[in-house]
Amino acid sequence: MSVLVVGSIALDDIKTPQDERKDLLGGSASYGAVAASFFSPVKMVGIVGEDFPEAHIELMRSRGIDLEGLQIAKGKTFRWSGEYLGDMNTRETRSIALNVFEAFRPDLPEGYRNTPIVLLANIAPDLQHLVLDQVDSPRFVIADTMDLWINIARERLLELLPRVDLLILNDGEARQLTGEDNLIRAGRALQVLGPRFVAVKKGEHGCLLFGEGTEIFACPAYPLDEILDPTGAGDTFAGGLAGHLATAGPSGIGFPALREAIIRGTVLASFNVEEFSLERLKTLDRSQVEKRLASYRKIAALA
Amino acid sequence: MSVLVVGSIALDDIKTPQDERKDLLGGSASYGAVAASFFSPVKMVGIVGEDFPEAHIELMRSRGIDLEGLQIAKGKTFRWSGEYLGDMNTRETRSIALNVFEAFRPDLPEGYRNTPIVLLANIAPDLQHLVLDQVDSPRFVIADTMDLWINIARERLLELLPRVDLLILNDGEARQLTGEDNLIRAGRALQVLGPRFVAVKKGEHGCLLFGEGTEIFACPAYPLDEILDPTGAGDTFAGGLAGHLATAGPSGIGFPALREAIIRGTVLASFNVEEFSLERLKTLDRSQVEKRLASYRKIAALA
Repeated sequence: MSVLVVGSIALDDIKTPQDERKDLLGGSASYGAVAASFFSPVKMVGIVGEDFPEAHIELMRSRGIDLEGLQIAKGKTFRWSGEYLGDMNTRETRSIALNVFEAFRPDLPEGYRNTPIVLLANIAPDLQHLVLDQVDSPRFVIADTMDLWINIARERLLELLPRVDLLILNDGEARQLTGEDNLIRAGRALQVLGPRFVAVKKGEHGCLLFGEGTEIFACPAYPLDEILDPTGAGDTFAGGLAGHLATAGPSGIGFPALREAIIRGTVLASFNVEEFSLERLKTLDRSQVEKRLASYRKIAALA
Repeated sequence: MSVLVVGSIALDDIKTPQDERKDLLGGSASYGAVAASFFSPVKMVGIVGEDFPEAHIELMRSRGIDLEGLQIAKGKTFRWSGEYLGDMNTRETRSIALNVFEAFRPDLPEGYRNTPIVLLANIAPDLQHLVLDQVDSPRFVIADTMDLWINIARERLLELLPRVDLLILNDGEARQLTGEDNLIRAGRALQVLGPRFVAVKKGEHGCLLFGEGTEIFACPAYPLDEILDPTGAGDTFAGGLAGHLATAGPSGIGFPALREAIIRGTVLASFNVEEFSLERLKTLDRSQVEKRLASYRKIAALA
């Protein structure tokens, strides 16, 4: 099965305690689409400006990503600038320039409309709704979000949740959206708002997946002794997850398939943070993914 | 094999966002010894005052704990009062009265000196040294510690590390003691200071165990939707771990045995926080432990 990925495409300036880099490929759809392409065919929807480097488009093409839904608009590409502090668990946005993204209206090519797996990577809930309005009964819809939308578009986000099969968000956002300090209660409270499944990302501490009834899956992160740039870790996680979910066999997409997808997302995200931007994903090959996957299973095995 | 547990025995006053309780049994040795007794015979070393309730001694006796090393001194029992804030990940000490603990000098009965597993539960490094001076080549020494000793007894703590096989501490303490923000680097840096194994506790996020070479084990916490009182979770973890380690067969105490011991410690700690003080451990039976252990393995299975 193939995966439709919609989200932002950006040029990022990033500062970490050790380094500073400019004009990097970024955005939730960039990370999400490239990550998903490790496991399944991907169709991408997004917008860039005329200044968007051809090399970045080449990278996506080289991953076999269908770019028919990529709009190249007059003007400049969306820009984000951020800085990571201390142990890199704290991030501050330095500046945002929406540019062409301001007028973005996702417009799905005819051939995208019956894509079975839909990943609504992190963008405004309004745009996520617009995409869902254009797809024909997808088999599984995944939505990622962020604190910004909880703050400024809470109602539209809440309206999105019943349209979603899996909601992905981080621990702080789960607490913020539900008012529950306890993460297990927060996850369950989110399910009541609509999504059948909820994945709570905890960065260096791994992930919690909430399924039907009392079903729950808890996994640690892949241990890394060096992180160069955490940008896009969550988007890569969501993309890898969506891409692997699209390989689910005839038994369908239930809790066991989601667990396996989360494991793949965790492994891809662990590679992503080893370099700036998508540089590690660019050189990554499938055999390296399989090797780390085996290592991860060994590191976290309880029996 | 049996386990020697030395640490504090206290009467605690505890306030949580929901409740407030006074005169509770507490202290690192109380939690550690009772937790260890679920798996192995325990010999306890500690001090209490004449005000120490007989019921608490009865509890320990009922768990089969050898109390020959328990000193009952003139004066009052060590008292600690603390308050948990918000999501209970923040704790503030309200007051401490050392009382009889101030003059505590662990004095090991003859029959304790060749105990193969030694758990130096959280007390001053000076006292941990004193206990090690009195044991005859123990098979495995575990030491727990806390931020207080890193702040006021850093040198004595550093001198202890080469005498220890497994150091247990929490994530904040690991960062504080090594100056490393990255927990994987912090764990490895701690091993360089002496202990062959290091376990970094991360509360609701589980635990990391560092072994020889690149050996590493990562596990999530057992997910709980309600925590009444986090006091003693770390002590219970250490006690359960030590108790299970004492059941290691002829293949000895290596990384696989430590992984299994950490899993038992995690499960016992998850019970402990469900009630105040040792109330949950008091009613807990072995079949409940085995049931949750099976559930934990299922929740965190990666394959």
